[in-house]
Amino acid sequence: MATTAQSVGDICRAARSAARTLAASDSATRDRALETIATGLETQMDEILEANALDLEAGREAGLSDALLDRLLLTPERVRGMAAGTRQVAALPDPVGELLGGGRLENGLELKKVRVPLGVIAIVYEARPNVTIDAAALCLKSGNACVLRGSSSATHSNAVLAQIAADAAASAGLPRDAVALVAGGGRAELAELATQDRTVDLIIPRGGEGLKAALTGVATVPVIYAASGNCHVYVDAAADLDKALAVTLNAKVQRPGVCNAAETLLVHREVAADFIPAVLAALDAQGVELRVDGRTRSLVSGDVASRLVAATDEDWDTEFLALTLAVGIVDSLDEAIEHIGAHGSGHSEAIITEDLTAALTFERAVDAACVYVNASTRFTDGGEFGMGAEIGNSTQKLHARGPIGLRELCTFKYVVTGDGHVRG
Amino acid sequence: MATTAQSVGDICRAARSAARTLAASDSATRDRALETIATGLETQMDEILEANALDLEAGREAGLSDALLDRLLLTPERVRGMAAGTRQVAALPDPVGELLGGGRLENGLELKKVRVPLGVIAIVYEARPNVTIDAAALCLKSGNACVLRGSSSATHSNAVLAQIAADAAASAGLPRDAVALVAGGGRAELAELATQDRTVDLIIPRGGEGLKAALTGVATVPVIYAASGNCHVYVDAAADLDKALAVTLNAKVQRPGVCNAAETLLVHREVAADFIPAVLAALDAQGVELRVDGRTRSLVSGDVASRLVAATDEDWDTEFLALTLAVGIVDSLDEAIEHIGAHGSGHSEAIITEDLTAALTFERAVDAACVYVNASTRFTDGGEFGMGAEIGNSTQKLHARGPIGLRELCTFKYVVTGDGHVRG
Repeated sequence: MATTAQSVGDICRAARSAARTLAASDSATRDRALETIATGLETQMDEILEANALDLEAGREAGLSDALLDRLLLTPERVRGMAAGTRQVAALPDPVGELLGGGRLENGLELKKVRVPLGVIAIVYEARPNVTIDAAALCLKSGNACVLRGSSSATHSNAVLAQIAADAAASAGLPRDAVALVAGGGRAELAELATQDRTVDLIIPRGGEGLKAALTGVATVPVIYAASGNCHVYVDAAADLDKALAVTLNAKVQRPGVCNAAETLLVHREVAADFIPAVLAALDAQGVELRVDGRTRSLVSGDVASRLVAATDEDWDTEFLALTLAVGIVDSLDEAIEHIGAHGSGHSEAIITEDLTAALTFERAVDAACVYVNASTRFTDGGEFGMGAEIGNSTQKLHARGPIGLRELCTFKYVVTGDGHVRG
Repeated sequence: MATTAQSVGDICRAARSAARTLAASDSATRDRALETIATGLETQMDEILEANALDLEAGREAGLSDALLDRLLLTPERVRGMAAGTRQVAALPDPVGELLGGGRLENGLELKKVRVPLGVIAIVYEARPNVTIDAAALCLKSGNACVLRGSSSATHSNAVLAQIAADAAASAGLPRDAVALVAGGGRAELAELATQDRTVDLIIPRGGEGLKAALTGVATVPVIYAASGNCHVYVDAAADLDKALAVTLNAKVQRPGVCNAAETLLVHREVAADFIPAVLAALDAQGVELRVDGRTRSLVSGDVASRLVAATDEDWDTEFLALTLAVGIVDSLDEAIEHIGAHGSGHSEAIITEDLTAALTFERAVDAACVYVNASTRFTDGGEFGMGAEIGNSTQKLHARGPIGLRELCTFKYVVTGDGHVRG
């Protein structure tokens, strides 16, 4: 692993060199490195917890909130979870070398389109030190070197964890520089990392809007932003209202703080009188704050009505990430699609309908990474999609869209084999 | 088609709206638009040639070089070629709606990964007015709206051609705004276009380094740069020297002004004494200027030797795009791979060898879009690869690498269908 005395440029150059070896390495070697990371986490448990205690102590002194301190906290159980997660990644199929297409061309040339590692991936993240191991495992598994830049609040924890990962790479016969940690969590290091376009192939920031803002306008390295999700559930005129109720509740309540939770409910006017009172009562019973348009309000009475809040224009564009839901009534499927096009973030959008044509229209017209028919938006997840693991979700349209799994950490190359072929 | 009175922002918003209709359109409708473009080119031949004559006249007055005037020139034959090219694109398989993966998940959800259009693609190009039709045809075929920004020197020609394409879209029942032309070839319009990230999904610049420099640091819309190619032919110790000679000559001489032509020849020292005199004589006979290292020079005598130029450090990094070739001797396959890693642009790289292990090592270790074994780098081309057509070549690793064909103008979405599924 790179020592703290190295410059960001030096670290990235060393990672680039390591990436060449990784690209030519076989699955078994990389899987051995992952198994050794898992073992290292278990055998170096005391060292990890001691380093983490230093970070927690500094965090308390610096006045970090309880929520941030909890994110920073490592426990034996959490560390064992990291080891188990690493073994799960090791058990996934190797994305490297997979044949994506090709065949024999007319002139007899043999063309192969082959998946290959991207090279060097930089991961920029905030408090949670477990990301150090997640990121190292996913990058090594996909044949990539990684440059990690964690939060300054997790300096001691990250140093030990990155050391375990680098040691594991070395013990498997891979270059130690395959896992490097950039010391210092400042904006200067971030800007330096984001401009290493000669050696770094991709930056994945995992963090909030502040991190995104710090990268935008600075980065010359390609960036895939982990997505924000302003997700909608649209209950169509032809909806089965039992399914609509179950999906709406799940999408909003099951884990409101994540990007694939729903933020807006749209209901077709033909079913609004039946559905709105029932769904709002159920949401209200779960403690959801309801921000509603005028037509929605007119359908509700009693206690629940007294707790409704009038939706502002801004509410339709807000990712609440909390037990808050905007609710509106639309006159048509087209109006729902139009609303989602205007306010959605292209993450996950659901229609509840029994009408095949409505479903097909929604599927085609809604421009989002994941479109659901009669299912909760909460399923947008690499694990749920059978991709095994993910490092985030992308709402970009180029390269990776939706869950960023092992394949999305790769590119491809064409390999063309001939017998002295020349072009005429 | 957008009129010149509209702002760049208005044009892009109209294109975005058109893109929604295009995304839901079927192949037959889009193919009909392409056929109508082809017919329009034929029936409006006189109008096209008259507009082109105005551009040529203005170009002559402005003192454009003969080479630039030739690029600007449209002839009946060239226009008929554009029509034929458009019909070829129409005949290609539709990339939209292709199923890229999926299946039934453990919980019974049906997951489909489906190819869909990107949305709005901006193409920025220089003198050649035929790109107006190429770009419109490829974008419409792939279900995308396009915003075209040609050179100011081709204003009249591009206006007529874009009008033909927009009329064709409209006559097929697609929105006229599916093909829009940005008037004015200035840098201000370019910067405005490059920052329409709310409505434009991708910019593809087709032009030289000046265009690239004008976009870098300004663009907030994702850009795929058409590549520069510093391509190598490496003649291995185990090369068949007849194949090596044929491939080297083809890669350098057949069309030196394009990005997949070779710029550097590397020869393993074990075959240098046999190969260098023969290949340099053959290249010299074709008028190639040879910039050679010291060891190469020592192997050549006579007339050819007198015309050799000593290679400078800069020559190894130069894309000559001309009948000029840098030639060096390496001690090993690894040194060749190292040299290509240090100096190549990741475009197209070739090894000539009969040794399977050497070929495999080169394939894996060389980080380029296209790696050739015993074949000329000149084959890097969408048409040659069976992709039917291309709008450029990418040396980026994200999204599109190598030829940018119809599929590369698309993204994908996940469509997930359930029966009221919720996440537990």
